[in-house]
Amino acid sequence: MAELHQVCAPLEFLLGTWQGTGTGVYPTIEDFSYAEEVSFTHVGKPFVAYAQKTKDAVTGLPLHAEAGFLRPQGDGRIELVLAQPSGIAEVLQGTVEGRDVRLASTTVVGTASAKSVTATERRFWVDGEVLHSSVAMAAVGLELQHHVVSEMYRLS
Amino acid sequence: MAELHQVCAPLEFLLGTWQGTGTGVYPTIEDFSYAEEVSFTHVGKPFVAYAQKTKDAVTGLPLHAEAGFLRPQGDGRIELVLAQPSGIAEVLQGTVEGRDVRLASTTVVGTASAKSVTATERRFWVDGEVLHSSVAMAAVGLELQHHVVSEMYRLS
Repeated sequence: MAELHQVCAPLEFLLGTWQGTGTGVYPTIEDFSYAEEVSFTHVGKPFVAYAQKTKDAVTGLPLHAEAGFLRPQGDGRIELVLAQPSGIAEVLQGTVEGRDVRLASTTVVGTASAKSVTATERRFWVDGEVLHSSVAMAAVGLELQHHVVSEMYRLS
Repeated sequence: MAELHQVCAPLEFLLGTWQGTGTGVYPTIEDFSYAEEVSFTHVGKPFVAYAQKTKDAVTGLPLHAEAGFLRPQGDGRIELVLAQPSGIAEVLQGTVEGRDVRLASTTVVGTASAKSVTATERRFWVDGEVLHSSVAMAAVGLELQHHVVSEMYRLS
């Protein structure tokens, strides 16, 4: 196990694997609920790998996934680059304050066949033993608005 | 284990985990060699998750990593969205022909602190038992040129 890079120290509270449940809404789809697993891992370099997957809470079938890298800048600022199987890639920047990471997209790009997503806001915060994750999204021509929120507990 | 989605059938030759070695060159850095592991996995949905990591061939220390999703379009065309800890996200499109996936970037974006990368070409091809992977890159103001190539064998 590599030693945590010093610029990643503010993200130590996220490291590990978390599981829980969440709910999603958007004007163009039916409300949904899901089971979620996220992991934050490091290899001793100045970034933290982030991976996430969700399943339908009722059927257990896979829903969403995403994978990317958090890049703390050593001064409270942080960057995230993120790829999604929906054909979307995001670049976000934001801040780490205590156990609260807030990010907003600076660029969202998509493949030719992807639905249009123009902006996102993402937040990861730990309150007590609970990791909260939320995403706001501007997609398919709509303005930025709440999309999903979840609560997870540490698995390892 | 979910059944492979029909649009992913042309990528079945990639599924699994592969390990091997590669070499890298670029005008702005010293030549280097590395150990590499890549995995291509699916969950029954119309995409294949791709994850890659490399280590220094001499010291064993981690070098690069990337994670993303291949989106076959069912007609020989394929898309890739990719995130990298260097702060770069890429959207690529290309083709699958036999056991040969060729991709070229349509968009490359980076975080504020990332080095400038403006274009890439990526190829994954299997010849006999060997997975070959190569990347050409236009970075730090230089034109698109060969960067890395590797050969891997199936681990699982």
